[in-house]
Order: sequence, then C-alpha cells, then structure tokens
Amino acid sequence: MTSKDNKSQTSASGIVESRVSKAIRDISPYSVPAIDCNIKLDGNESPFGLPDEVLAKVYDSIKDVSINRYPDPEAKKLIGQISKATDFSNEGILLGNGSDELIGMLVTTLADGTGKILCPTPTFSMFKLTSLAMGADVIEVPLDDNFDLDLENIISVIEDNDPDLIFLASPNNPTGNMYNSGKIAEIISVAKGVVVVDEAYSDFSGFTFLPLVKECKNLVILRTLSKVGFAGLRIGMLFANDNLVAEINKVRYPYNINSLSQAVAEIVLGEHEFVSENIQLIIRERARVFNAMSSIDGIAAYPTDANFVFFKAHDADLLFNELVARDILIRNFNKPGRLENCMRVTIGAPEENDAFLAALNEILSS
Amino acid sequence: MTSKDNKSQTSASGIVESRVSKAIRDISPYSVPAIDCNIKLDGNESPFGLPDEVLAKVYDSIKDVSINRYPDPEAKKLIGQISKATDFSNEGILLGNGSDELIGMLVTTLADGTGKILCPTPTFSMFKLTSLAMGADVIEVPLDDNFDLDLENIISVIEDNDPDLIFLASPNNPTGNMYNSGKIAEIISVAKGVVVVDEAYSDFSGFTFLPLVKECKNLVILRTLSKVGFAGLRIGMLFANDNLVAEINKVRYPYNINSLSQAVAEIVLGEHEFVSENIQLIIRERARVFNAMSSIDGIAAYPTDANFVFFKAHDADLLFNELVARDILIRNFNKPGRLENCMRVTIGAPEENDAFLAALNEILSS
Repeated sequence: MTSKDNKSQTSASGIVESRVSKAIRDISPYSVPAIDCNIKLDGNESPFGLPDEVLAKVYDSIKDVSINRYPDPEAKKLIGQISKATDFSNEGILLGNGSDELIGMLVTTLADGTGKILCPTPTFSMFKLTSLAMGADVIEVPLDDNFDLDLENIISVIEDNDPDLIFLASPNNPTGNMYNSGKIAEIISVAKGVVVVDEAYSDFSGFTFLPLVKECKNLVILRTLSKVGFAGLRIGMLFANDNLVAEINKVRYPYNINSLSQAVAEIVLGEHEFVSENIQLIIRERARVFNAMSSIDGIAAYPTDANFVFFKAHDADLLFNELVARDILIRNFNKPGRLENCMRVTIGAPEENDAFLAALNEILSS
Repeated sequence: MTSKDNKSQTSASGIVESRVSKAIRDISPYSVPAIDCNIKLDGNESPFGLPDEVLAKVYDSIKDVSINRYPDPEAKKLIGQISKATDFSNEGILLGNGSDELIGMLVTTLADGTGKILCPTPTFSMFKLTSLAMGADVIEVPLDDNFDLDLENIISVIEDNDPDLIFLASPNNPTGNMYNSGKIAEIISVAKGVVVVDEAYSDFSGFTFLPLVKECKNLVILRTLSKVGFAGLRIGMLFANDNLVAEINKVRYPYNINSLSQAVAEIVLGEHEFVSENIQLIIRERARVFNAMSSIDGIAAYPTDANFVFFKAHDADLLFNELVARDILIRNFNKPGRLENCMRVTIGAPEENDAFLAALNEILSS
C-alpha cells in the first residue's frame, strides 16, 4: 500500500511523500476541540464519579499493583469476571485499550492492506479512519431518512462487493437510534464477511445482540466501559466465536491492558449496583431532556436509545458558541451535507441537564 | 492482503480461512509461559517498587483522576515533561500504550499491507510479529558472530530491497549488546526508508542516538518506561522529526494512554532521583552477576549493556526446570538454530541475584 513513486529523498517531507500512503497523508486526525467548560456534555461520558465505598476499594486494589511488573498479558481475572457476567467462555472474549484498539485489531485481522469495509453513515468516525489508515477500501452507505439502515442498498453493496467487515453501531453514534434489529439480522445472514455490531451504547437501549453470537459465526459484538462511568480506564470488550477470537488475539499487543486499569476494572465490575442505578438515572433524564427539547422552537431533536440526544439547529455554530459562553460544552457536527447544523448533547447529571435546557431556552428565545 | 480464494462459507473456520491472511493464520501468538516463581528474573522488569514518599504522591494524584472522563487525548502534561527532559518539542514526541503500540503505528504508517521491513536477528520478536500481522514482508539479516550488525549484508539488502522500515534494537534484546554506533550511523545514512532505533534498554548502556534525530530525518527513536520501574503503566515514547510524527500521529487511537497511567507517569517523571539510583544499582549488580557467571563452568555469558545477561548453557531446558524448582524464573529461548540452549536472566535486586548465582552454582556443579 505504500506509494513508492519517489524513494530517492531522505528529507522528512521526502520520506512522508514516498513512504506514507496517500490515504494516511489525506487523513485529518481525529480531534475534538479542547474547550474547557464546567458543564461537559460533549463526550458521551457518565457524569458520575465512584461512590465513596467503591472508591475506597479502588484505592486498596491500586495499592496491590506492582507497577514495576508487566500487567497480566491475558487479563485473566478481568476476563473471568466478564465471562461470568455474560455467559461467554474466556476464549470468546477479547479486551482492547478501548474499542478503538479492537476496531484496529479487527481491520488488521480481516481487512488489512486491500480489504473492503462497509459502513452506514453517518456513524462513529473511527470505523472509517482506522480502515483508511490501514489501507482498506471503505464503502459508505447513507442511512435512510430515519437514520435507520437502508437495507436494500446495503444488501446490494454486499452482493456486489463482498466486504470483509461491516461496522454497525447500534445504538448509532451520533444519531442515537438503534437500527431495526430485523435488518441487522438480515445483514448478518447475507454477509459472507464479518459483521461487527458496536454496542457501545446498548446499556442505555436495553437491547443486545450478544446471544446471537453463538448462532452466527460471522458476528462480532463490541462493548465498552467508557459510557457507563469508566472512560478513563480504556477498556473495550469484544465477543465472538472462539475461532475468530483466536485469530484476532494474534494481532493483539501482548500487554495491551495496563495494570492499573485491570485492577480498577476488576473492582468496579464486582460492584455494579451503582453502575446500574446510574444508567437508570441517565435513561430517566434522557426522557426528560428529550421531551423538553422537543417543545423548544428552533431545534429538532431525534429519538434516542443512547446516553445523548442528536438534534438539528438553525445555526449550530452560533448555538455552540452561545452555549460555550454559558460554560456548557456540547458536540457540534456542523458541516455541509447530512450533518449540516447537527449537534449532540450528552445526558448529564440532573443539574447539568437543567442548565443546558435553561441555556437552550434562553438562547433560542432571544 | 486478505486471501479471498473461498468466500462462500460463513462458518467460523470458513471465515478464518477466507478472510484472515495466511501470514496471520501462521502466527503463533507472542506468549510467555505463565509460571509463578517468587524470584522473577524473566521479564527485564525493574525489581524495585516505589519509595514510600513517591507512592504517597502517586495515590494523591490518582485521587484527582475522574475515571468517568476520557483521558487527555494528547497527554499534554506528560509530553510537556518529556519535552523538558529531552529538549525535544512536543511535536517531536509521541506516546504509545507501550513500545508495542508504537511499533504497530510505525508499521501501519510506513509499511502497511505491502511494505518491506528489515530486522537483524535474533532481536525483539514484536518487530517481526507486528510486521507480519500487518502484511509487510520481513527480511531478516543474521547478526554477526559477536551479535553485532553485519553491515555488509545489511547494506546490500538495503540497496537491493529498499526497505520502508529498519528496526535496530540497541542494546539488543535478547543478546544484550549495543550495536556498533558507527554501523548504525552508516545504516541511517544509506537507508532511504525509516530507521527505528529501539532504545528500550539505553538507560543501562548510557548511550543514546536521540541527539541525531535533529540531523537525520529518517531516524526514529523508541524509549520506554517499562525497564526502569514502570512496566505496569504501558508508556512507550517515540522521538522523530515533527513532520514524520505528525503522520504517525494520524494512525494513533485518540485516547491511547489511559488516565491512571498518565497521572502516575506524571508523578514518577517528576521524581526521577530514585529511578536513577535504581538504574545505577542494576548496572553495578550487572557487573557482579556477569563476572560471577563468567567463572561458572557449563555456561557462557555474553557481555551486556542492558539490564539482563544473555548466556548459553549445555542443556537450557534442564537448567530452566532446575531453576524453577528453586523458585527462580528466567527466560529460556532454547530452540534449534542460533538460539539453541540460549537463556536470558534479568538483573534483579541483590538478594535475588545472590539466589540465582547460588542456584546456578549448585545445579551446574551437581
């Protein structure tokens, strides 16, 4: 995949031009503008810290970590806990340094260099970015008017192109909706390649395709601890057929989950009551925020199954700046095309949501 | 790179055969046998924990981490500290989840899919493993009889094959020696692709090529916190020309350094006196262990610039098992060919080294 038209120079620009693929040179790196606001509703994080009694256990567990030693390369204790919670065997589970790394491992294993990837769009940008970086062809199929899968179009792309990997985020980011589960099942059944259902937000939808992994050998499920309170740990989880996991595991860096994240994740997975309570609270707040947004003139909020609301404004850039001026950060997707004037607000703690709604009312009624 | 001879099946074995490259299917995953011994001299880790006063600061800093939030994607504070310590600008530094991830990012950026990689061997196995997983061709050039670079052979491979990436570990693992610096400089000057000097062990050799990065646009240096006391954190560091770093940064997963490792690394980099003292102690112990080993019949120890001693035994498997029976774990590389009966022992704390030497004497004199 490296372009080798001109290999004569050893200046840095010469090396970049002669050794780095055009696909990578053309990439604008994934970046989120670094704006500091006290009310941070841009990253789909949980607004809640750990309860004191869990925090105490976390500190204790960290004291047992020998940071001069390498982490357990197989994260056996953590995988054992996930195995118990999901009824998957250890051999059907793989951990990544966030789902980002698992997406990279999937592309490396299944579509590196010359593979083909199918993504409905708009969706999580790392699917495309990682695929392009690794030299795969990315075929994008627009979602329909309800941001659901355009099944006819997708089936036709599958029949014509036989993609190695299909990435379906459900609930989808940034649109917030689950895809129709019948359509996902149909895609899994028609595809000869691997279908990845990224369920990063499924804790907020209450729906999962996990049980289908046992029947569908070409189905991979991604989950994460990032949206339910532990984004700082970088723990992504992959579930698939043992044989497929064994191959993906070969491209995993041996010590990819550091010792501190392993130790903390072991504690919080054993103390999941507060996590469930926080999720329920976010789901209740989501209904309240969505209803309030639906009654505000000047924005159109889309139904959501995730921990955020996707919406369209008349002038997203202006609204974004007015919110920042009020110390509230949300995510602005505004660019020409499908995402014109589109924005995303994460469901925060009740008082943060109040502040957001009050600011929205104030800005849009002025 | 994916082999597409047979795409009709969706059974798991069908998918593995039709979608996973032969290079990956043929890989035996990197694995270190999980044997528990109290004296652990197999992993080139530091034997020393943190001094109490540093530990207290580490715990304090962890209390400031909001693990519900994503880490700083640019690890600005940590990179700022490294910048100050090395006189590199922030734009010339990149962090990885261990050097493993940086090696992967280098291969992805410079040689993914169809690139060519040159490695002198024997060397750190991840260079080859990662390159194969990503579909690159790996050209191995045997080290000479002193485990130094075979310059003539390497130059000839460069002229014939123009590799995109050349990986030189100096001091080399597992052989322990630094390569001749004149030979490395010659390779950097002749190569049109990128030369990576992996200096994972350079804290123990006192020699670094870092200053050469400003002159040589095709030179990349890798360093790590893993060998000097912080293997559990997974912090690898890359130093190169700003333009090259900018391209490699595009394939970096945005949140690749978790919040806890960032917080702890920030503390320990600010408290490096104990780290230097520990390094000096290991260097003194290395001389003592090497001299003692050199006087033992039945093994041949090679001179070392790293925190371990590479040596040859008459029967490595037997010696390995006898040491394990005495609760001492070292690394056994025994396999037919160049590494036949070769072993590696990490320099530990003085009492661990005493135990190792006593066991060695006991086993080999019996």
